[in-house]
Amino acid sequence: MTVLVLTSEQDVTADMVVARLHERGVPLVRFDPGDLPGEGGLSAEYVRGEFRGYLSVGGRVVSMDGLRSIWIRRPSEPAAHADEPSEWLTAESGQALYGMLDCTTARWMNDPGAAAKARNKPWQLRLAHRSGFPVPATVITTHPQVARQFAEQYRQVVVKSVSGKVPSDPPMALPTTLVPPDADFGGVAAGPTLLQRYIAKAADIRLTSVGDEWFAARKVSEPGQVDGRFGDTGHSWQPVEVPARIARAVATYKNLAGLAYGAFDFAEDSEGTWWFLECNQGGQFGFVELQTDQPIAEMVASWLSVTEG
Amino acid sequence: MTVLVLTSEQDVTADMVVARLHERGVPLVRFDPGDLPGEGGLSAEYVRGEFRGYLSVGGRVVSMDGLRSIWIRRPSEPAAHADEPSEWLTAESGQALYGMLDCTTARWMNDPGAAAKARNKPWQLRLAHRSGFPVPATVITTHPQVARQFAEQYRQVVVKSVSGKVPSDPPMALPTTLVPPDADFGGVAAGPTLLQRYIAKAADIRLTSVGDEWFAARKVSEPGQVDGRFGDTGHSWQPVEVPARIARAVATYKNLAGLAYGAFDFAEDSEGTWWFLECNQGGQFGFVELQTDQPIAEMVASWLSVTEG
Repeated sequence: MTVLVLTSEQDVTADMVVARLHERGVPLVRFDPGDLPGEGGLSAEYVRGEFRGYLSVGGRVVSMDGLRSIWIRRPSEPAAHADEPSEWLTAESGQALYGMLDCTTARWMNDPGAAAKARNKPWQLRLAHRSGFPVPATVITTHPQVARQFAEQYRQVVVKSVSGKVPSDPPMALPTTLVPPDADFGGVAAGPTLLQRYIAKAADIRLTSVGDEWFAARKVSEPGQVDGRFGDTGHSWQPVEVPARIARAVATYKNLAGLAYGAFDFAEDSEGTWWFLECNQGGQFGFVELQTDQPIAEMVASWLSVTEG
Repeated sequence: MTVLVLTSEQDVTADMVVARLHERGVPLVRFDPGDLPGEGGLSAEYVRGEFRGYLSVGGRVVSMDGLRSIWIRRPSEPAAHADEPSEWLTAESGQALYGMLDCTTARWMNDPGAAAKARNKPWQLRLAHRSGFPVPATVITTHPQVARQFAEQYRQVVVKSVSGKVPSDPPMALPTTLVPPDADFGGVAAGPTLLQRYIAKAADIRLTSVGDEWFAARKVSEPGQVDGRFGDTGHSWQPVEVPARIARAVATYKNLAGLAYGAFDFAEDSEGTWWFLECNQGGQFGFVELQTDQPIAEMVASWLSVTEG
């Protein structure tokens, strides 16, 4: 039974898991959907109630019957590397590939439908509430008056991208930013704006969860630091124990979201409370493993290796 | 409790259902996501475990607490009509709107996640098999040799778009087309190609299903006609009884797919067998209702009006 790893050629995080799978002697195929058609080919037959599918990668043929698990790491768009790429060819190739994979009984990390839903930030906030996480008060609005009232009520608020995406023309980063008290909220009418109560952070927490297991790491914050992703504080990630309430909430959240993998970000305040910021269903873990020696790649490899009986 | 109809301004099919809802005295809001931000605004608050959401449309405010159902008919892209449209604004507005709607307990026709999955043709074929429909033998392949063998085995085969989309530069229709016996299959390597055994049709069947109900209509085919969507045969749609096997398969398919609405297309052969061609989760029904007088809009309005207790 084979593990299928869907990712692009340059992917150090995938390399780490692939090495662990090789150590375990688990057959695997690494494939970038951008190479379909081209390096990769497929055939799916639907005849008299039976389904038979084959993926060919560099001369090797994998039967869909023989897939134990599929890891969607960081794949290119289907047909991205085709001789004559087009939106249409991407649609055709994507439907053919992911549609064929959806006809198998393989386990997904993560199921594409669950992954799409899990990327939605407003839905994440609601699910985090329901799962039992502490969540900073948040508003998403197109009404300047609502934004102004929220800022007055909570005094220190940050503004974030709703979608997690950044404006790309010209390309610019959009770090989480403190809103000055005298901000002009008129611009809120031009697009939905997410405001969140600012948590004065003692530390950033990253909890990486795979199946029923997890590792958490903690990095001390500089006073006044707002977005842990930007700027070097001189502190490094250290392993940390997970409070029981958080462990229960992680299990509930992943179960309700249908996720096999999730990277949770928290802000730890001065009283030690972990505030839910987001769950990235495709979050990186290489940087945490390198600094903490937590065997996250091994945990992923182990999950992908299981054959359901 | 309010019904939310998401569709663009010009939509005769929506007009038909809106008229029925008005007759029933059911409160409704019709909104085009393309008008967010602009004509439409929203606010979603996540505070101390509670969620409160509001959609404002032309001065009217709808509480998310008060939504009974959401009908996604034919909406524009979020922010499509904004003063300064951009991919980023579309992503932000889409996540804000659909994320907020996903936090409600309203019933969806159809749930966006189920709809996305249901659009996938290879997955449809597998699900149709599992649900008990007769399905014409089909192959999707990038291997010319596989395509050639399939054509030789079944003699009369048609080629279709895998994704249901059409190449758009330049725009061209892609009707289902008979493949000549001496076709050159070399081009199959350039993109996944869907070949299907040709069913010599006595009639086209359109079955429109809403919740646990349905109506079916039949249109006699011209001998040799391949794609019922193109060309006028002079025949019109007539109501038809649904065979028990098909009724059971429709219920199973919709249940497994998680769809409230589905428009099923079948080819009826000379022996009266209904062959599954596709299920369009967002298929039109206006043209069938106009020709058959089947009360499909009423069936949709009825489903949207139910308040779950």
